[in-house]
Amino acid sequence: MTRQISIYNSLTRQKEIFKPLTDGHVGMYVCGPTVYSDVHLGNCRTFVSFDVIYRYLLYIGYQVRYVRNITDVGHLLDDGEDRMLKGAKTNNLEPMEVAQKYTVGFHDMMRIFNTLPPSIEPRATGHIIEQIEMVQVILDNGYAYIKNGSVYFDTLKFAEATGEYGKLSGRIIDDLIAESRDNLKNQDEKNHPSDFAIWMKATEEHIMKWNSPWSVGFPGWHLECSAMSTKYLGKKFDIHGGGNDLKFPHHENEIAQNIGSCGCHPASYWLHTNMLLMNGKKMSKSDGNTISPVELFTGDSTHVTKGYSPMVVRFFMLQSHYRSPNDLTDEALSAAEKGYKRLMEAFKIVKVYPCPVKQKVLWTKKLSIFLMEH
Amino acid sequence: MTRQISIYNSLTRQKEIFKPLTDGHVGMYVCGPTVYSDVHLGNCRTFVSFDVIYRYLLYIGYQVRYVRNITDVGHLLDDGEDRMLKGAKTNNLEPMEVAQKYTVGFHDMMRIFNTLPPSIEPRATGHIIEQIEMVQVILDNGYAYIKNGSVYFDTLKFAEATGEYGKLSGRIIDDLIAESRDNLKNQDEKNHPSDFAIWMKATEEHIMKWNSPWSVGFPGWHLECSAMSTKYLGKKFDIHGGGNDLKFPHHENEIAQNIGSCGCHPASYWLHTNMLLMNGKKMSKSDGNTISPVELFTGDSTHVTKGYSPMVVRFFMLQSHYRSPNDLTDEALSAAEKGYKRLMEAFKIVKVYPCPVKQKVLWTKKLSIFLMEH
Repeated sequence: MTRQISIYNSLTRQKEIFKPLTDGHVGMYVCGPTVYSDVHLGNCRTFVSFDVIYRYLLYIGYQVRYVRNITDVGHLLDDGEDRMLKGAKTNNLEPMEVAQKYTVGFHDMMRIFNTLPPSIEPRATGHIIEQIEMVQVILDNGYAYIKNGSVYFDTLKFAEATGEYGKLSGRIIDDLIAESRDNLKNQDEKNHPSDFAIWMKATEEHIMKWNSPWSVGFPGWHLECSAMSTKYLGKKFDIHGGGNDLKFPHHENEIAQNIGSCGCHPASYWLHTNMLLMNGKKMSKSDGNTISPVELFTGDSTHVTKGYSPMVVRFFMLQSHYRSPNDLTDEALSAAEKGYKRLMEAFKIVKVYPCPVKQKVLWTKKLSIFLMEH
Repeated sequence: MTRQISIYNSLTRQKEIFKPLTDGHVGMYVCGPTVYSDVHLGNCRTFVSFDVIYRYLLYIGYQVRYVRNITDVGHLLDDGEDRMLKGAKTNNLEPMEVAQKYTVGFHDMMRIFNTLPPSIEPRATGHIIEQIEMVQVILDNGYAYIKNGSVYFDTLKFAEATGEYGKLSGRIIDDLIAESRDNLKNQDEKNHPSDFAIWMKATEEHIMKWNSPWSVGFPGWHLECSAMSTKYLGKKFDIHGGGNDLKFPHHENEIAQNIGSCGCHPASYWLHTNMLLMNGKKMSKSDGNTISPVELFTGDSTHVTKGYSPMVVRFFMLQSHYRSPNDLTDEALSAAEKGYKRLMEAFKIVKVYPCPVKQKVLWTKKLSIFLMEH
């Protein structure tokens, strides 16, 4: 019934024919934003890419359950500070006011970019019970240990027992030891530098915390995606997506948690979007080489000569394959503006062109999803 | 600093001078929608009314934390069927897909009606731990009992011990017995017909369920508001709002739960919006006397001669005081359309009128919130 497609699987590092677990149905999980600040243009590129993948799967006849989460707790900065609390401090708000402010802003931006809402949009704070239960199963299976009220995933034991750790990111445990930063919070509590917290004991001042069998605390960031994908898509599902930067440690640890609790790889296919560059370089606030979506729309930035409409930016983003870097320059945007105009003119012609209605519907549908190559 | 205002308190049945618990700050909780179907026009009237109250409080200088929940579990129909599961069955979706679909639709409608998002928008499924903990405290305080894995609030014991049950709705326990429907689910498990479930044991087929000390089940509908208002506004806060139809049993039971767990009335002031009528009668699907927001905007209904823009409908809704019934008729909408046009013309004149900027800003602000009387 549905057309055969091939997709590149980051896990196996090859193009594979797409075979869903259940005929005609696709379960897709995409890592959503941490709602502690305005969404970056680079994140927008990821979500626009998965929007087209979602629309394309629907277009070729699949019934898709598209789950994209909202991270509103547990995502720590390198110095161990909770991103949500940092957002709260900066804005002088309660953490959940921060989450609401930036969730609304994120949804607004997704609408501006003409993306479809996902089928389910679970929040990390909304699934504490499920996360606590998953920690317990991982402990029961012997892949985690408790230290001072926190629970850590035992990567070494897991790697030895399953041979699975590092497969997605291509890292091996020895490299991980060398790379691990000494300044990670609670580093000293870990048996091994590559171990990671799946439950963290909260300090007295920490606002977002819940009772658990181990301490009043909060879940580790990686855990939410394992718990929520399992809840809404099952232990095994078809596609897991996210930005390239999430491959390690986030997705690697997610796989470890899923195997450690459910005994199987969660997703058949892993899809990762590449970076959005600006003027050939990585976007970076400290170098001034950055632009926000709003600055891009209004032209209020030294990096562009004028503002570009959201649909021009969307069109520009979709001119690169999602696995290739996307280099944002004023010239490329200007060219995209012309290209988008031409596409829309073609769209108008198709609408009035005398051809069978069926053909017309097909063309219109094709154009409306901005067909991507695969 | 802030202007003195008087508001009608449904609890005391009189107009009172508004004194917030903390100078300059207002905590306001408004019962939000159950996201199992499209939002009704009547609900829109309630949320538009509280939007103006929110804007007005901000306008006179208060810092407002406005909490409005999303009910995505536990709200049962008269025959005991879970509204979310009913929505899921009708749409052939998982309950959380139903919640997402109608949450997105609700947010869209709130934006169309030009309402501000609340400061925090907690979901019932996102606060199961908090609800379980509140059930435990109510049990510990002796105001609830366990029957076959479900937990019921003991209204008779609560009424005798505190004298508080029925104050908001003006009902007395004897009336409640007479009124209680025999077909309520698990009626036979209750010691008294006016008792209500705060935790319900789930059947095998029930999809949305969680572990608890009493059973795998789900929280009673009334509980979420008690738990979430306490979490985000504290045991005592300033304003609690909702539609008139929520006074009993929802708000009455909410007060009972709060006093039963925290020992105090939650809100200082209770505000209730009146009904939206159509052609002088209660809107009712079975009588065909109903119109959806979209039908009203497009004019696709026998009840209107043409479509009316969302801002005209908003203007029409705000022409009645929120405590009075609001009678929607084609003539009234047509008159509102003219009135709204006049207001917008005045707005344009103010913008170009040569007067001090300060005065202009004041007028513009006043007009922009559609000042309501109080």
